[in-house]
Amino acid sequence: MERLEDAGLFSVAGVRGSAVRSGVKPSGGYDLAVVRFDQPMTAVGMFTTNHTAAAPVLVSRETLAQSSRVSSFVVNSGNANALTGPDGERHARAMKERVEAKLGAPGLVFSTGVIGVPLPVDEILNGIDKASEDLSDDGGEFADAILTTDSCSKRCAVRLVLSDGDQVTVGGVAKGSGMIHPNLATMLAFMVTDARVDAGRLRTMLSRAVDASFHAISVDGDTSTNDAVMLFARERASADESLSDGDRSLLTEAITWVARDLARQIIEDGEGATRVMEIAVEGAQSDHDARSVASAIACSSLVKTALAGGDPNWGRMLSAAGTAGVPFAISALTLQIGGHTVFADGRPLKFSEASVSEAFSGSHVSIRLSLGSGLGSSRMLTTDLSKRYVQINSEYTT
Amino acid sequence: MERLEDAGLFSVAGVRGSAVRSGVKPSGGYDLAVVRFDQPMTAVGMFTTNHTAAAPVLVSRETLAQSSRVSSFVVNSGNANALTGPDGERHARAMKERVEAKLGAPGLVFSTGVIGVPLPVDEILNGIDKASEDLSDDGGEFADAILTTDSCSKRCAVRLVLSDGDQVTVGGVAKGSGMIHPNLATMLAFMVTDARVDAGRLRTMLSRAVDASFHAISVDGDTSTNDAVMLFARERASADESLSDGDRSLLTEAITWVARDLARQIIEDGEGATRVMEIAVEGAQSDHDARSVASAIACSSLVKTALAGGDPNWGRMLSAAGTAGVPFAISALTLQIGGHTVFADGRPLKFSEASVSEAFSGSHVSIRLSLGSGLGSSRMLTTDLSKRYVQINSEYTT
Repeated sequence: MERLEDAGLFSVAGVRGSAVRSGVKPSGGYDLAVVRFDQPMTAVGMFTTNHTAAAPVLVSRETLAQSSRVSSFVVNSGNANALTGPDGERHARAMKERVEAKLGAPGLVFSTGVIGVPLPVDEILNGIDKASEDLSDDGGEFADAILTTDSCSKRCAVRLVLSDGDQVTVGGVAKGSGMIHPNLATMLAFMVTDARVDAGRLRTMLSRAVDASFHAISVDGDTSTNDAVMLFARERASADESLSDGDRSLLTEAITWVARDLARQIIEDGEGATRVMEIAVEGAQSDHDARSVASAIACSSLVKTALAGGDPNWGRMLSAAGTAGVPFAISALTLQIGGHTVFADGRPLKFSEASVSEAFSGSHVSIRLSLGSGLGSSRMLTTDLSKRYVQINSEYTT
Repeated sequence: MERLEDAGLFSVAGVRGSAVRSGVKPSGGYDLAVVRFDQPMTAVGMFTTNHTAAAPVLVSRETLAQSSRVSSFVVNSGNANALTGPDGERHARAMKERVEAKLGAPGLVFSTGVIGVPLPVDEILNGIDKASEDLSDDGGEFADAILTTDSCSKRCAVRLVLSDGDQVTVGGVAKGSGMIHPNLATMLAFMVTDARVDAGRLRTMLSRAVDASFHAISVDGDTSTNDAVMLFARERASADESLSDGDRSLLTEAITWVARDLARQIIEDGEGATRVMEIAVEGAQSDHDARSVASAIACSSLVKTALAGGDPNWGRMLSAAGTAGVPFAISALTLQIGGHTVFADGRPLKFSEASVSEAFSGSHVSIRLSLGSGLGSSRMLTTDLSKRYVQINSEYTT
């Protein structure tokens, strides 16, 4: 598997797109993007489970429930079209119909941005018209046009060779200004591959990739009004054309790799984040238990503020672990910070404070907690909770 | 029911206590306190469910499992004796034995403060000796000696008249620098009444009082290593001496009132808090559902930062509500901020931004969300997430 530099969704042949300034963003920046596939693709998606799911989520979910074939989609940023009532749903449908008319049906629709403000639908429909006339192989400013409070675009692509020698590509693009606040309308990710996969298998691949990536940066399992992760693949030419088990594993691995890389880019761009911490939990009774413990640590305000201060506060980490609802014996715990064991056999160890503090002071730090009771494990990424985060979120309406 | 001014635990006759400077707190402040009951009391407690429960919690829980009679207890602040291994447990037992020897058995032991540091047990045992020789009817500096990062002591007492004309008192004292960070070793509360109640009934009263008070300021249901809420009552003189149903209701109400008042004092003293928000959720299918929704709003970093900025960001509130795992119809929601309806019939209403902003700018603000589907309701208090909170928790080891 080979990583392609500076590439994203449009590394895959047959995927064209473009972006325009529709006038929705007060900044006047790129805020509307479209994609057209040269042939209908197999499409699967995972959407927010928030009960205030936005109109575009409802419309796209409905479209995919009818068929997993997709020819085009549109994304606007600057307005989430969430909590906007029946008008919002009409607007989302109008966006879908316009992109289908211009670029081919079935089409999907995604929005991200401010919640509860009526969508300026005329500007957006004009934007779709304009964007549709200017498609290019590299998608133009697509990766920028889907951003909101992000400070940079997120792209990733890899190429791999299947067992028959065929080369396939997996490309992706995402937006997210940090899943450190996952209940904001923050996250969209689109991935595409020219490998030929049916919808059932593709769904399994997406689910595994998301679990190891976007779900592993979720602070508390919360989901926003607009979150969506899409995976598109070439349709199989015939029903008996199917990937071998080995090739399926390879492809799943490649998709997971792209998803993890996009997730890492999202969390590194987290609002106000100055430091990323990787939390590895091992020795749990199950992976699920390990994830619960990792998540409790990742979501603790006390751990996240200690991280901001570069303070390797192991007591806060273990106390947070104890709130996960997962039983463990304190005497079986082992906690390492940056490779230094600080707690074992039920008590704190003597360790070099200077070494541990240094290991906790860089832009990327890691901790490893073993529960000592099984083979379950999980990894999560979290950011620090900084004064800058509070400033960003208390001074601006988002 | 009459509120007693400036009173606390020691408003109840027969309760004596004192506090000393044992030398555990680096500040040299009061850090050790004892209480002695003139006769053994019926005692019930609720403790942290954290799997890293501290040694004093294990020891007190064990004591109460053997008998619900208590004659004395000791509290130290400055060191939580949590995650301190077998030594920690020996130290907690030594504290219990010393207070029992000095002030009467059975005794209980409570600790609060920094986690994972060995308890300076000699200083503490000397402190118990010293404190035991200096008991007074007003408890001396008891309410101050149990504090950690608190900026003020928390006390409350009420007096009520039972149906037979007897007067009884309920007094309480608490410490907590904000359940806004409930996984720190922050909260202790002690309540006492001279009403005569058996352990079973007393447990029911405590459970109801805590649910409406300390649990209603918990940000995410997390619990610290040391949290404990204790309720003591006079033992019944004989088995058939029992409160009437009416008196039991009155007494439960009084205990709940004291618990809510102490909880309010805790959250108002929350670290870095500049504003308290009351969240009333109504029209849910059950009280449990209403609590889940209230809790999701109360715990949302985005809601709490908006609160810091005085920004009545209703989109964040509804989006947070949508993450509670409680199904609702967006079209049935009604959201009021400070009495102004801002969202109804599935869409935002036109409202006076100036009025709503003003209603959201004071030190105490309120929102009311109706789910429109039942009779379940719940109230919670939360604080804002301020830059000061981050500063306090990133710059000091706690």
